[in-house]
Amino acid sequence: MKITKAVRRILDQYESDNPGTKANLARMLMAGRLGGSGRMVILPVDQGFEHGPARSFAVNPPAYDPHYHFQLAVDAGLSAYAAPLGMLEAGAASFAGAIPTILKVNSSNSWATAKDQAVTAGVEDALRLGCSAIGLTIYPGSESYDGMVEEARELIAQAKSVGLAAVVWSYPRGGALSKEGELALDVCAYAAHMACLIGAHVVKVKLPTDHIEQTDAKKAYAGSDWSTQASRVAHVVKSCLAGRRLVVFSGGAAKGAEAVFEDARAIRDGGGNGSIIGRNSFQRPREEALALLERIVRIYQGRE
Amino acid sequence: MKITKAVRRILDQYESDNPGTKANLARMLMAGRLGGSGRMVILPVDQGFEHGPARSFAVNPPAYDPHYHFQLAVDAGLSAYAAPLGMLEAGAASFAGAIPTILKVNSSNSWATAKDQAVTAGVEDALRLGCSAIGLTIYPGSESYDGMVEEARELIAQAKSVGLAAVVWSYPRGGALSKEGELALDVCAYAAHMACLIGAHVVKVKLPTDHIEQTDAKKAYAGSDWSTQASRVAHVVKSCLAGRRLVVFSGGAAKGAEAVFEDARAIRDGGGNGSIIGRNSFQRPREEALALLERIVRIYQGRE
Amino acid sequence: MKITKAVRRILDQYESDNPGTKANLARMLMAGRLGGSGRMVILPVDQGFEHGPARSFAVNPPAYDPHYHFQLAVDAGLSAYAAPLGMLEAGAASFAGAIPTILKVNSSNSWATAKDQAVTAGVEDALRLGCSAIGLTIYPGSESYDGMVEEARELIAQAKSVGLAAVVWSYPRGGALSKEGELALDVCAYAAHMACLIGAHVVKVKLPTDHIEQTDAKKAYAGSDWSTQASRVAHVVKSCLAGRRLVVFSGGAAKGAEAVFEDARAIRDGGGNGSIIGRNSFQRPREEALALLERIVRIYQGRE
Amino acid sequence: MKITKAVRRILDQYESDNPGTKANLARMLMAGRLGGSGRMVILPVDQGFEHGPARSFAVNPPAYDPHYHFQLAVDAGLSAYAAPLGMLEAGAASFAGAIPTILKVNSSNSWATAKDQAVTAGVEDALRLGCSAIGLTIYPGSESYDGMVEEARELIAQAKSVGLAAVVWSYPRGGALSKEGELALDVCAYAAHMACLIGAHVVKVKLPTDHIEQTDAKKAYAGSDWSTQASRVAHVVKSCLAGRRLVVFSGGAAKGAEAVFEDARAIRDGGGNGSIIGRNSFQRPREEALALLERIVRIYQGRE
Amino acid sequence: MKITKAVRRILDQYESDNPGTKANLARMLMAGRLGGSGRMVILPVDQGFEHGPARSFAVNPPAYDPHYHFQLAVDAGLSAYAAPLGMLEAGAASFAGAIPTILKVNSSNSWATAKDQAVTAGVEDALRLGCSAIGLTIYPGSESYDGMVEEARELIAQAKSVGLAAVVWSYPRGGALSKEGELALDVCAYAAHMACLIGAHVVKVKLPTDHIEQTDAKKAYAGSDWSTQASRVAHVVKSCLAGRRLVVFSGGAAKGAEAVFEDARAIRDGGGNGSIIGRNSFQRPREEALALLERIVRIYQGRE
Repeated sequence: MKITKAVRRILDQYESDNPGTKANLARMLMAGRLGGSGRMVILPVDQGFEHGPARSFAVNPPAYDPHYHFQLAVDAGLSAYAAPLGMLEAGAASFAGAIPTILKVNSSNSWATAKDQAVTAGVEDALRLGCSAIGLTIYPGSESYDGMVEEARELIAQAKSVGLAAVVWSYPRGGALSKEGELALDVCAYAAHMACLIGAHVVKVKLPTDHIEQTDAKKAYAGSDWSTQASRVAHVVKSCLAGRRLVVFSGGAAKGAEAVFEDARAIRDGGGNGSIIGRNSFQRPREEALALLERIVRIYQGRE
Repeated sequence: MKITKAVRRILDQYESDNPGTKANLARMLMAGRLGGSGRMVILPVDQGFEHGPARSFAVNPPAYDPHYHFQLAVDAGLSAYAAPLGMLEAGAASFAGAIPTILKVNSSNSWATAKDQAVTAGVEDALRLGCSAIGLTIYPGSESYDGMVEEARELIAQAKSVGLAAVVWSYPRGGALSKEGELALDVCAYAAHMACLIGAHVVKVKLPTDHIEQTDAKKAYAGSDWSTQASRVAHVVKSCLAGRRLVVFSGGAAKGAEAVFEDARAIRDGGGNGSIIGRNSFQRPREEALALLERIVRIYQGRE
Repeated sequence: MKITKAVRRILDQYESDNPGTKANLARMLMAGRLGGSGRMVILPVDQGFEHGPARSFAVNPPAYDPHYHFQLAVDAGLSAYAAPLGMLEAGAASFAGAIPTILKVNSSNSWATAKDQAVTAGVEDALRLGCSAIGLTIYPGSESYDGMVEEARELIAQAKSVGLAAVVWSYPRGGALSKEGELALDVCAYAAHMACLIGAHVVKVKLPTDHIEQTDAKKAYAGSDWSTQASRVAHVVKSCLAGRRLVVFSGGAAKGAEAVFEDARAIRDGGGNGSIIGRNSFQRPREEALALLERIVRIYQGRE
Repeated sequence: MKITKAVRRILDQYESDNPGTKANLARMLMAGRLGGSGRMVILPVDQGFEHGPARSFAVNPPAYDPHYHFQLAVDAGLSAYAAPLGMLEAGAASFAGAIPTILKVNSSNSWATAKDQAVTAGVEDALRLGCSAIGLTIYPGSESYDGMVEEARELIAQAKSVGLAAVVWSYPRGGALSKEGELALDVCAYAAHMACLIGAHVVKVKLPTDHIEQTDAKKAYAGSDWSTQASRVAHVVKSCLAGRRLVVFSGGAAKGAEAVFEDARAIRDGGGNGSIIGRNSFQRPREEALALLERIVRIYQGRE
Repeated sequence: MKITKAVRRILDQYESDNPGTKANLARMLMAGRLGGSGRMVILPVDQGFEHGPARSFAVNPPAYDPHYHFQLAVDAGLSAYAAPLGMLEAGAASFAGAIPTILKVNSSNSWATAKDQAVTAGVEDALRLGCSAIGLTIYPGSESYDGMVEEARELIAQAKSVGLAAVVWSYPRGGALSKEGELALDVCAYAAHMACLIGAHVVKVKLPTDHIEQTDAKKAYAGSDWSTQASRVAHVVKSCLAGRRLVVFSGGAAKGAEAVFEDARAIRDGGGNGSIIGRNSFQRPREEALALLERIVRIYQGRE
């Protein structure tokens, strides 16, 4: 498999990583229909943990089966599949080698009493399951942030030492942040930056609005036009160590297909590296989901 | 990447292995031009350790450069590239993700005073270098066998625990074995069997002659026709847990291209899983080597 | 490189440290334009973590790129560059050997709800990134002090055991301390002393005012003239185990160049070992920053 | 060095300790002018941590230098020198072998918001610095007592496992205790007893008054004459496992020399094992301190 | 205890060691009648392991009792007592603090089939038994040398990390060495040098003859007069990193007292640091042994 120049350039940015981690980043970047383009579409299925099975899967009952998601990701030609331990254990052998996987190593749930995540899997699990990366969530701004970030940095360091990559979901919430502020441009950029600073290889954030939350930051954002999504994506990309780290954006709650495509175009035009699309894919019937993913791939290929 | 049925059947035989190890076996079985066929051609370059650099590379000077071999394996569309630590360290980052690699973790050398191998790399090296497998040599029959096999079983166990595969070079020598006996059919089959018994995923042996070395074994081999290479390969395959383990055959010293092709046809027809071809490839000029490897691939594809 | 007598004398004070730690202290003390003088100017870039990327870098956009800061520190001939994990990972290979680096292993951020810092990197990261030291912050006086100092002493012990140096940012805040008190002379001297007592090799404090915060300490400070900055620096130096530990002073928020130079002269005249200058350098355009750092170096050289 | 009978008898009481710990107790009991007598005078210099450098050292400025205290303890012929990490690191090599040292592994400070101590050094530090013992403080009665005592028992267990001794400062405070009660006879005896119960080899308490704090305890103390200091010391000694554990008494705040001598005589007459004298020695000019310590030694020798 | 200048100078040579190791070297150098002189006499009792109890002790039956040897070393005012685990365990508590001890951590025995030693105790044993050092034997020239030296370097590294010293018995034997060669000057100097190179603090070798064993070395030794024992001792001392490491000489098999005294004078005059005297002391009746050791001490004091 000849590594493309686009991917080669990205790998070169990870100059402190060992060849094992680079190879796993390459596996994700070379897999599927977007392989070689420097863009990625990832299927995450941790909603069972976060919202419970019925809220996640009843709308499309075949999705109760862990194999369903592996097959969907393979058939749609995606870059990687991310899920918690049990979901991967139930299919990793059947789909060994078929698609890069990301083990989500911490999780929250609907009954949690704090804005925190529990560590629910480890780096050694990722190795025995043949994963290319671990994934984990931090909540910047939360009262639990310090503990979360300390767990995160240890897991990331372990992953790196055994040649795995680390994908960090950085979701600001809690503390002094307003609800609107959780999606503010300054907050989103800061959250992405923090993920980079603790050593993430790939950052996942939500698409930001043009709200500026922090009074102290208003001056730094004044004088620029943040009205387009693409300009906001570009600012987040710059906040990810001037584009030296991969950043992908989540689709959020299930919504209309056109809105999903518009997001993808803005991510592409702003220089983002792709999408993580969970509920918007697996909560649709399989054929509809495949069609939707097909069009997202075409958008990232610049074909529409 | 859809795993083919041929590969799926092979992976299913490794029923006690974790998905990580299966994924790495799948990576080797799905890589290159033979990807998906259940056959493999592997490039091994440990001759610098075994015979010294000049004897190995002077005949084709570009081969002094570790990148030469990575590039050769990629360009020839091979299944994997196997080499000692230093050779991999010198290219693993540049070729991260381009081809599955096998870290040879023990080595002998021309000055060795015992029929033994020194452990010269570890499983942690294989992880940080992004390898799919470790490779190691045992010498059944040697006075050093006990120590070698103790080291081997520890390295194999470690590799399995972190999702790597283990390739065992099983070369009978020393002790009561005659020189002719090292290649005897009964000895070769026994050596392949021992490698399986200590947990190898892939066994590498030399192509056996029709000599039977052990007096006690003569009766068991009587009454069958061992005159064809394919029949002898088939016996070795059967000795590898009835074909439940992959077995590849080494090409031996540099020789004429036609002899190499004949070997490959015999391996194919006897049900062997492929070839490990070192000196017969990298000691030829690059274009000649690529042409030779192209034809071997075509043989395993059943096209000539 | 001949170690100068001034540096030799300093190293001899670290009489319980292993040669590895001494060598890393020597690297910082012998680097850059002040190399050999016993003085240091260090560039710290942890403001992205502390204040977010836009507030830190928007005023001088090239500073979004981690390579910018490495280059600035090298070009200005500084003694060391200090930054969080992600910032160092993104440039440590490109600038390997170019300048001593300090990995900041704990960090706060603008949204923190407690006066605390999270551990965001480890000693093993510092080793793999080739750092000379770890850096960490404690908040004497804070409700979180006990936990912070316990984390600190473990990280410091680990760093020492593998031959790294430890730089401790000691910033009094919280608890019963008044806002004015955070910069009080008695408070600053006490904070520097505590950093020494937990084993810091290099202490970083803010320049103190002549305010005396603690009623119980007033008597000890009575009868001396603390009106000059140099006299206050000298008292802090004495509080650092009678000058047996290096102490550098931070520049605080961005301000006019003349004020920065005046600070440096006071640090020099009071016997302090140098400056840590972040926002006052990288928030200026590069040429202006280089000119400013050039003058600071000249001040420490006693040339103006 | 022939161990004296007095010391032999003391060591025999530590019947569950390994020979390493006994040897370190012997080192302290055989060192200095009181060596062999079963009495000890220990110099503790942790006041810089507890009260800040100026309040501790400004009255006798040479005391800012860590070497000053090592030299004072050696020249006065004391039994041991106790200090926090930084103070020992700054002199342990220069004074290696010259006097037994005790590493104070936890510390409070003037700004602490809770009645607690932070762990600021570890057992491994004590080993690498050549210490004979670790020292640590507990606050019986404090809201933080449980956490402190759990840390203490772990540190004590570690110290014992590597042949070190443990000295416990037991200072009742906080919770329901009145200010007067902190020095009450019943409280002091109880605190000393608790230190013994968690495994201390040497207990350090303050000299008690004849106040009885606990209503429930009044009956037990009724009918005896507690008017003399010696009688109260004798009660504390009895509370230390019937004299099977060494107990030394602290001198408290700086005071007149005669008061110090009177304390020493009472400790001696009550059967206490000696004094820990910090501020009353190092806050005096060196010659005066040496003269004072000389007289204290003579008192314990029964010569005045 | 004021460390003498002679000892201070020796300790300063161990510039890479931590204060703990320095303190343990100081303990041995300051103990007993030679304390402070820079010379040492050590009692080793590992002959029970090496030659069996009867061959070792029957000639002086009280020597069967481990306490006998502790008492002998204490009464003779020796610098240290060295023995295997069981011997120390049986007396370390009774003699805690009375004399520095050295735990011999490897051992051979009369029935061994290879010129090798088994590791029979560990560094953690040395700590719990209150030892100042570990002792171990290597056999340069032996077929087992590589394994022995690998074990040795690990044990030495562990000892150093916890503040212990390491004494290495370096006895050339086996391989190509002739019997006469085992005591040759060039061989002895080389063996002492190897011990220093693997990190020994104290080296123990046998007194060399004037034979030169190695053909290649003859030229280097030509032109000098090696006829006196003192000149040969001086050469060994120089081979111990130019006198930067302590070297003591063993007395060999039991022999006449005058021969023992002559050896001691030669060691002293050649600048050696002392004697290790086992069989020549404990195989004599106690009073005779004490008289002999008394005279050896006087010789090292320069008094006869």
